Amino acid sequence: MAKFITIGERLSTTAPAVNKAFTERDPEPILKRAKQQLDAGATYLDVNIGPAESDGEDLMKWAVQLLQSEFDNVPLALDTSNKKAIEAGISVYNRSKGKPIVNSADAAGRIENIDLAAANDAIVIALCNGEGIAKDNDERMGYCQMLLERGLEHGMEAEDLWFDPLFLVVKGMQDKQMQILECIKMFSDMGLNSTGGLSNNSNGMPKHIRPIMDSAMVAMAMMQGLTSAIVNPNDLRLMETIKSCDVLKNNTLYADSYLEI
Amino acid sequence: MAKFITIGERLSTTAPAVNKAFTERDPEPILKRAKQQLDAGATYLDVNIGPAESDGEDLMKWAVQLLQSEFDNVPLALDTSNKKAIEAGISVYNRSKGKPIVNSADAAGRIENIDLAAANDAIVIALCNGEGIAKDNDERMGYCQMLLERGLEHGMEAEDLWFDPLFLVVKGMQDKQMQILECIKMFSDMGLNSTGGLSNNSNGMPKHIRPIMDSAMVAMAMMQGLTSAIVNPNDLRLMETIKSCDVLKNNTLYADSYLEI
Repeated sequence: MAKFITIGERLSTTAPAVNKAFTERDPEPILKRAKQQLDAGATYLDVNIGPAESDGEDLMKWAVQLLQSEFDNVPLALDTSNKKAIEAGISVYNRSKGKPIVNSADAAGRIENIDLAAANDAIVIALCNGEGIAKDNDERMGYCQMLLERGLEHGMEAEDLWFDPLFLVVKGMQDKQMQILECIKMFSDMGLNSTGGLSNNSNGMPKHIRPIMDSAMVAMAMMQGLTSAIVNPNDLRLMETIKSCDVLKNNTLYADSYLEI
Repeated sequence: MAKFITIGERLSTTAPAVNKAFTERDPEPILKRAKQQLDAGATYLDVNIGPAESDGEDLMKWAVQLLQSEFDNVPLALDTSNKKAIEAGISVYNRSKGKPIVNSADAAGRIENIDLAAANDAIVIALCNGEGIAKDNDERMGYCQMLLERGLEHGMEAEDLWFDPLFLVVKGMQDKQMQILECIKMFSDMGLNSTGGLSNNSNGMPKHIRPIMDSAMVAMAMMQGLTSAIVNPNDLRLMETIKSCDVLKNNTLYADSYLEI
C-alpha cells in the first residue's frame, strides 16, 4: 500500500493573517506557514483563498506560482468556490511532484467540479453529501456512486476521485462517529481513495484535547483504509500517529528513526 | 458496547523490585505499584508471580488478599504457570468487583487452564497459539475454535473466554501486524471478547517511541473490536488514546473532562 497522504490545511483565509497576506499579495506570511507545514511532513498544501469572487483568478495564479517556485513544485490543493480561480491556478501549475487537487466537488451545487477536474487531468475531493449532511451510509454511498460515475463518464481514473465522508463533530454527533468510520471502510473495500477534514470531529473541544482526539480518530480511520486527510501537519501527535500507522500497515519500513522523516 | 477493559501489567516478577517484594512478602512496593495503576485508570490488575514452583499457593493467596483488602476488592488476573497457585488465589478471591481472570490458557500445554477456569467460574485468557507462533489466521482461528469448544463443553459462557491473538514485535515481524489486526476483527465478528499483551508490538524500540507506537496500535485494534488489553496504565498517551477511542465508539459519553476520569 502507498503511504498516507497529508494535505496541510494552514494556508486558509479563515486565518486572519493568511487572509491579509493573500489580499495584500504579501509572500512572507504565506511562505512561512508553507515551510512550517512542509518541514513537518505535509505531502500536499491546501491553498484556500475563500470565495475570492473579484480577483480569484489572479490570486490563485499568484499563490500557485509563489509556492511552487519557492518549494520545488510542491503539489497543491486548490480550494475555492470560484471555478475560474481553480482553472487559472491549474493553468500555471507544475505537475512534476503530483497532480493538482480540486477542493472540492459534492453531489449538489458543486458537482460540476468533477467535470472541471476531468477536463484538467486533476484529482478531485468528492464530498459525499448533497444538500446538508447525509443521514446514513446508504445516502453517502449513493452520492459516492453518483460522483464516481460522473468522473468516469468524463474520462477520469477512479483513483483520482478522493471520496470524503465528511467527518462530523463529536460534540453533538457522537453516535455518528462509527458510521463515518464504516463509510471509510466501504470506500476502501471498493478500492477507492478517500480523504477528509479530520479535525472536524474535535471541533469545540478544549484546545489540549483536540490533538488527542484527532490522533485516535486518524488511527481508527487508517485502520478502515483512509488514504489521506486534510490536517494540521504541525500537530506533532497527529503526525506521529500517522507515521506509526503507516508502519503498522506496512506502508513504510520501520526504522528507529521513522518519526524524524 | 461496553467500555474497554485495561489489565495493569506492572505487578510482575519480571520487574526486580516486584520479584523481591513477592519473595520477601513485603507489601510496600506491591501496594505502591497497584495504587499507581489504579489511580491511572486500570480496571484489573495482573498479578504475575512467575513459575512460583515452591511456594506459589501461599504467595498467590497472600497477594490476592493484600491487594483486595487494600483496594476495595479490586478485580485481579492471576498470572502463573503454577495451576495450584491459581486455584489457591481463587479460593480467597472476592468477586464483588469482577470474576478472577486465569492468565492464561493456550491450545497446547496450557489447555487445561480452560478447565480450571470453568471449574472456578473464572474468566480465562485464551492464547490462540499451539507450540510456537501461529503461521496465519487460519491456524489462529483453529486454536480459537478449539479453545472455545473446550470452554463451552465445560460449561463456560463464551463471554468468559478472552481470546488473545498474540501481538507480535514490529521489529522482525512488521509484515504480520495487519494479520493480527484482522484476527481481532474475526474475534469481534464472532461476538467474542479479546485481549492481549499489546506492547509486544513495540518491543526493542527506543523508549520514547514505545508509547507512540502502542497508542497507534491500540486505536487500530479498538477499531477492529478489541475489548481489552494487558497494558501499562501509567503510559499516559496510551490511556488517553483508549479513552478517546471509547468516546468515538460511543462506549462512553463525551464530556470535556473525559480524560480526567
